[in-house]
Amino acid sequence: MKLSKLVGDRFKERPANCLIDSHALMVRGGYIKNVANGIYSQFPPMKRISQKIENIIRDEMDKIDGQEVLFPVTLPGSLWEESGRYESVGSELLRFTDRTGSKMVLGMTHEEASVQLVREYANSYAKYPFMIYQIQTKFRDEARPRAGLIRVREFTMKDAYSFHTSQEDLEQYYQRCYDAYNRIFARCGIPEVAVVKSDSGMMGGSISHEYMLLTAAGEDSIAICPECGYSANVEAAPSIVKNENTIAKEELKEVATPGTGTIEELCEFLHIPAENTAKAVVYQRNADDSYVVAFIRGDLDINETKLTNALGCEIHPAVIEDDSVLTAGFIGPVGINEKVTVLFDNSLKDIDYLVTGANKVDTHYTGFNVERDCPNAKYFDLAKIVEGGICPQCGKPHITISRGIEVGNIFQLGTKYSKAMGFKYTDENGEEQYPIMGCYGIGVGRMAASICEVRHDDYGPIWPITIAPWQVHLCCLRSDDAECKEFADNLYNTLQNKGIEVIYDDRKARPGAMFADADLLGVPVRVVVSPRNLKESVVELSTRDKSIQKKVPMNEIEQEVDNVIKQLTDSIYEKVK
Amino acid sequence: MKLSKLVGDRFKERPANCLIDSHALMVRGGYIKNVANGIYSQFPPMKRISQKIENIIRDEMDKIDGQEVLFPVTLPGSLWEESGRYESVGSELLRFTDRTGSKMVLGMTHEEASVQLVREYANSYAKYPFMIYQIQTKFRDEARPRAGLIRVREFTMKDAYSFHTSQEDLEQYYQRCYDAYNRIFARCGIPEVAVVKSDSGMMGGSISHEYMLLTAAGEDSIAICPECGYSANVEAAPSIVKNENTIAKEELKEVATPGTGTIEELCEFLHIPAENTAKAVVYQRNADDSYVVAFIRGDLDINETKLTNALGCEIHPAVIEDDSVLTAGFIGPVGINEKVTVLFDNSLKDIDYLVTGANKVDTHYTGFNVERDCPNAKYFDLAKIVEGGICPQCGKPHITISRGIEVGNIFQLGTKYSKAMGFKYTDENGEEQYPIMGCYGIGVGRMAASICEVRHDDYGPIWPITIAPWQVHLCCLRSDDAECKEFADNLYNTLQNKGIEVIYDDRKARPGAMFADADLLGVPVRVVVSPRNLKESVVELSTRDKSIQKKVPMNEIEQEVDNVIKQLTDSIYEKVK
Repeated sequence: MKLSKLVGDRFKERPANCLIDSHALMVRGGYIKNVANGIYSQFPPMKRISQKIENIIRDEMDKIDGQEVLFPVTLPGSLWEESGRYESVGSELLRFTDRTGSKMVLGMTHEEASVQLVREYANSYAKYPFMIYQIQTKFRDEARPRAGLIRVREFTMKDAYSFHTSQEDLEQYYQRCYDAYNRIFARCGIPEVAVVKSDSGMMGGSISHEYMLLTAAGEDSIAICPECGYSANVEAAPSIVKNENTIAKEELKEVATPGTGTIEELCEFLHIPAENTAKAVVYQRNADDSYVVAFIRGDLDINETKLTNALGCEIHPAVIEDDSVLTAGFIGPVGINEKVTVLFDNSLKDIDYLVTGANKVDTHYTGFNVERDCPNAKYFDLAKIVEGGICPQCGKPHITISRGIEVGNIFQLGTKYSKAMGFKYTDENGEEQYPIMGCYGIGVGRMAASICEVRHDDYGPIWPITIAPWQVHLCCLRSDDAECKEFADNLYNTLQNKGIEVIYDDRKARPGAMFADADLLGVPVRVVVSPRNLKESVVELSTRDKSIQKKVPMNEIEQEVDNVIKQLTDSIYEKVK
Repeated sequence: MKLSKLVGDRFKERPANCLIDSHALMVRGGYIKNVANGIYSQFPPMKRISQKIENIIRDEMDKIDGQEVLFPVTLPGSLWEESGRYESVGSELLRFTDRTGSKMVLGMTHEEASVQLVREYANSYAKYPFMIYQIQTKFRDEARPRAGLIRVREFTMKDAYSFHTSQEDLEQYYQRCYDAYNRIFARCGIPEVAVVKSDSGMMGGSISHEYMLLTAAGEDSIAICPECGYSANVEAAPSIVKNENTIAKEELKEVATPGTGTIEELCEFLHIPAENTAKAVVYQRNADDSYVVAFIRGDLDINETKLTNALGCEIHPAVIEDDSVLTAGFIGPVGINEKVTVLFDNSLKDIDYLVTGANKVDTHYTGFNVERDCPNAKYFDLAKIVEGGICPQCGKPHITISRGIEVGNIFQLGTKYSKAMGFKYTDENGEEQYPIMGCYGIGVGRMAASICEVRHDDYGPIWPITIAPWQVHLCCLRSDDAECKEFADNLYNTLQNKGIEVIYDDRKARPGAMFADADLLGVPVRVVVSPRNLKESVVELSTRDKSIQKKVPMNEIEQEVDNVIKQLTDSIYEKVK
């Protein structure tokens, strides 16, 4: 490919709306173009990267006996009604009607479609286990698309579905897929991806893992224990709190606390630490706006995912109007309106005397004891695990919290979908059973953007050679110099004929402009042909990551390009287990 | 791939709802499964065929300097408003709103998206010409999906868009694409695809061609002149009629014609041929249901596409109520209500005296002369070309009408989209110009189904080796015979290690069931290993098209498989120009 013909602009200025580097670089480098909120077109370099990632995924899925299929993007609403998700999933599921008025949805995940495809076929135990997968466009009507290709509404995803006759068989296959995922990330040049326990969310099922690429630009928080290696999404990590009773025995007593609508104001007014308070955090159910109050120790925060799971329904942060049954800023468990759902976080267990709201303006209780004053209190794990918190695995208080991007996930679904959709097979004894399912996803565009996020410098992406849009970037510094151009033209043809992918900058451009473009395209091997070097019978060869920068004799350059490509490829494959 | 693990059922019974053979075979062979009206999932064999077709298309597009990109499936309505198609396209364009209430559409073609992608990039003449293409899911909300993958609502399509600075340059590129398309069809094993002139329809533009695979199951009609090679979709073929004045001069005269509401009844009543009548065909505009009456010589039929083009708006066959301004069955041009739009087909030119309706029940005029009685008549080409009609190219009356499936199309769009969307570049003289566009489509699934339609027998598809799901179908007739199984297992591994794609029937099944499945999978080379043959140290090798059926010594089978694959491949490539 000649750069002079490559469709797409590259430019220097960082676009104002790009909050993270990968987004800025992929716009500046002519990889993507925004079409609508969270919806992008892909220019040729991005399409090439996507295809390479897809081919790596396809290869690894085939190696674990996956069979590639294709499900529709547009699905009948009736299929999602069978699983119950037509109702249960929020507005990220795009619902519409076709010309006949039939309910349709845009596929955001294909559990229902996978069951629909195989439920007649897989009617006997002898057909099991099997796995089917697709690489296809998905749509998820995200409320807040952000960060370029990291969180979009339309995306290409590999989604795989496995079917089993026993939990044991699922677990064995889950492990094979777990390993295949590690190979995929290593082959794409990010062997450091961490596997963490995750919350299964709307997918249902019990055990699930996320593959996290750790980076400050990530939108997920991961709890890691450096002592024992425990790692989990904070949404899935239990918060463990040990309370010590430090306050003398007290009676429940109303005290005036004027102007103390926040925990900070309250603690300052009473000269107590936040741990000695029971804080109210208020939400409303999406369905009917009814109030939910979660009480938690004043120094901790609620994790909404945990609260959602505890309630079994979708919620949003509350708006408390003046005429509400709640007294904003002074809400407490004692005497709270009966219509309000009240939950207690585990952090309020085994703690004796606290300050909490009295459900009256400018008034709190001191000496509040949950067991004595709220004998029917129900405890849940609702708190966010914190930096320095207790590790749920080894018990040491050394948890660290890191940011990460979820680049893949795997779920043990169990029989949620087969039961809901009446999908059965006949077992060895002639009895009907529900198949046990697993599902396994990787977003292609998000993976590319994540790799860019962790593999770039100020000037552009540094693509791993296995997914780079081209392998070699050839610059002819003076295309108006006949000898120089002839050498570069020949080298371009020779390398291409050897099957090497070359982007050839044959433009009449300043060297600075050429190198800036080369940096933005992030191609791993760069070859620079210039009249000055040709006089010395050499060309310059360097790598985008600057690990190699040397002059190579003209007659050795083809061989040396081969060598460097092999070296870069090998260094990636060394990390594939 | 072992057949015992292949996901999907194969069965014998022809499904009742399958009107054409390819549909029945692709359902019976485990290729596709219906998910909703006109929406299918693909089982692994179909996915493999699709991918091979896509790779052939990709290769040929790359050879004519195409650059692969990806446009979104979901597009903002505002983009289609820019081109005017948000309003002008009928309900086959699926419109919906997202969670924020923004207008969106599902992409059915991507002229607008292609302009959106390149309109900043392609701002100077130096960037031209270029072509971008994608292979992506499309959605078209067809009123009447039919015939399996031939006419669906969701489909995978390659759509390409080229951009030029002169009509001449577009025409040169159009010819390159025209040739590339012929190579694509030949490489896919259907070199007989005919190129015909077509109507540009909603795409706009002037010159366009369709690639038609002739088969009785096709839904398009193609006019072909065996004398000169002229071919065109009947929608695009001019109808040429030579009238001879055979009737003596007459006055316009009202005659009673009781009970003659149809041309047949009228002709029988008056003892005249249909050519001597001016027939009224009535439509209504979709927009306001206003009436349009097309008059045409009684023996000819109206082509709705031509009428739509003449009117410049969408229409539907009329419903004439009792209180209508029209007198159903007796409509004529003389004295017709002024609100009705009246058009005359060219077949009524130069014809002297006719019978036509008098706009009164049970009454006609005789002696009607268009020029004399309707001096302001406007003539259009509205008639369907007929079998035995006059060739628009050589003038001989030898037109034949064949049925065909449109497997591809190419359009010269001109500046329709660049003008509508304000897309300009600066030419050599510093002046702003609108780029000239071409677009080029091929439906992948329809192509596969069409090939099946013209390459099958009673037992299954006969896939060309270039697109077959596998190259070799290996049957082990007695997998319970240790020697037989060992030989077959080894052959399977050896062939696969050589890079040959093998589907291996290792089941304990009757030979009849095995062969029926093999026929349904349509794999070109079949190798049958049986104890009887092994005793004679041979295996059976045959081709799905039955051109080869022989016994091959065991120790030569690998080489012979290679030879036959090469022979089948060569016979396809011989026809690629």
